[in-house]
Amino acid sequence: MSSRPVYIISDQTGITAEMMSHSLLTQFPGVNFDVNTLPFVDTDDKVNDVIKQIDQALEASGVEPLVFITFVDDAHRDKLLTCKGRIFDLFGAFLTPLESVLEVASSHSMGVSHGIVDPVRYTNRIGAVNYAVHCDDGLNTKDYDQAELILLGVSRAGKSPVSLYLAMHFGIYCANYPLTDSDLESQELPSSLARWRNKLFGLTIRPDRLQQIRHERKSGSRYATIQQCRMEVSQAESIYMRSRLKSADTTSLSIEEISSRIMQKMNLKRDAY
Amino acid sequence: MSSRPVYIISDQTGITAEMMSHSLLTQFPGVNFDVNTLPFVDTDDKVNDVIKQIDQALEASGVEPLVFITFVDDAHRDKLLTCKGRIFDLFGAFLTPLESVLEVASSHSMGVSHGIVDPVRYTNRIGAVNYAVHCDDGLNTKDYDQAELILLGVSRAGKSPVSLYLAMHFGIYCANYPLTDSDLESQELPSSLARWRNKLFGLTIRPDRLQQIRHERKSGSRYATIQQCRMEVSQAESIYMRSRLKSADTTSLSIEEISSRIMQKMNLKRDAY
Repeated sequence: MSSRPVYIISDQTGITAEMMSHSLLTQFPGVNFDVNTLPFVDTDDKVNDVIKQIDQALEASGVEPLVFITFVDDAHRDKLLTCKGRIFDLFGAFLTPLESVLEVASSHSMGVSHGIVDPVRYTNRIGAVNYAVHCDDGLNTKDYDQAELILLGVSRAGKSPVSLYLAMHFGIYCANYPLTDSDLESQELPSSLARWRNKLFGLTIRPDRLQQIRHERKSGSRYATIQQCRMEVSQAESIYMRSRLKSADTTSLSIEEISSRIMQKMNLKRDAY
Repeated sequence: MSSRPVYIISDQTGITAEMMSHSLLTQFPGVNFDVNTLPFVDTDDKVNDVIKQIDQALEASGVEPLVFITFVDDAHRDKLLTCKGRIFDLFGAFLTPLESVLEVASSHSMGVSHGIVDPVRYTNRIGAVNYAVHCDDGLNTKDYDQAELILLGVSRAGKSPVSLYLAMHFGIYCANYPLTDSDLESQELPSSLARWRNKLFGLTIRPDRLQQIRHERKSGSRYATIQQCRMEVSQAESIYMRSRLKSADTTSLSIEEISSRIMQKMNLKRDAY
């Protein structure tokens, strides 16, 4: 089956255009897409070059290329509209109605959504990412006073990626702590964590999925047996229950889904980037 | 000045809706927005509750709330359209024209863009995040054979957040290596790196900005003097030049902008999430 050519084109990073078009295209699981992202298309020459590529893709594939665009420069956008692809102008579709509701003109070249729009928020976000690395995997528990959130879980339950996503995307100061064998056996919250109870959130996972992940990492070890995984998961869940911690099962959720749910359950302020 | 109420509503994570509306709203820097994100609005009761909130916001503020939505469930979306806010249907605006070009119906409930659509890609992405943590800040250089990219830079030039973003967002296996005093003095690539020359990318930064960042971290140390920052930056840039490495100045670029530029300059395949 031949592929449908897709071009994602922006005079900025192209990240918004990529995310939106990805969201739209996943609604058509039966179609093969050949996706090309071309960011920083911000000169006449680059625009001309892109038009040539799109027109050639039409000739080569015989089907109309889909062209998703986000442009802040109107002249470059207007030039691009002359290509032979089908244009989906992701900003343009909403800016005119927004201008009419808000009764102000949009500021085109100033609106660089993935640039450093607000230096204070931006610095906070970098601080949050550095903090998540600093307090990854049980490191530096002495600095938990700065945490807004502390994720708990057995080894390989998905703590690190979620902590980093929360920091990167929402600017949350998030630590994560692996429940050790002795924590699990004692069936109590580690004493170093008990004072931060209102910041704690438990991650859990189905034992068979945990076993699969651990097997890929350390095949043949006791750590990767189904018995061990079952025991650890049930001990961890029991600690969450006894301590009345909020928790989530990561088994079939993506990083984004887990992160959004934690933000909601813990009532954390979203400050999305 | 009173704020314009904004509601970002989704029956999924709301992340696409947040990013798109953020991009659009930054085009109106003169307007104050009071932004509320409500993800996982996936039952009749939740939809009714959201409608009530929006209608109350209109009464309280006296201005029409902006309502950005991404829904996969048509019935819930249709119900939401009855609220008194101005609706911007971020998916709806494009799905119908896409269906007509592609000549297939979209698969509504299946199209969960931030879920685990493709388990192989998803597992690769988690692997990339774990690798970026494993090889952060010069750790585990023995595992550089797995890297697709190795970022170099002086301390606090922005290596860690960029590595993690590239892993999280594009699934890139990215290590980062801090140039040490002895590396800088020798004016040569460290021997452990020389064999990976085609994976290396240099980050640089203006000395006054570096000094500011280091000052916030370790005020009063030699590390944070402008003389030290100037010397380290010039030595690092000299190493990049001599070794003919590609490089970028992070001073006034956001994580997203640096990451997009690196992807482009190093010709890495974008696999965006």
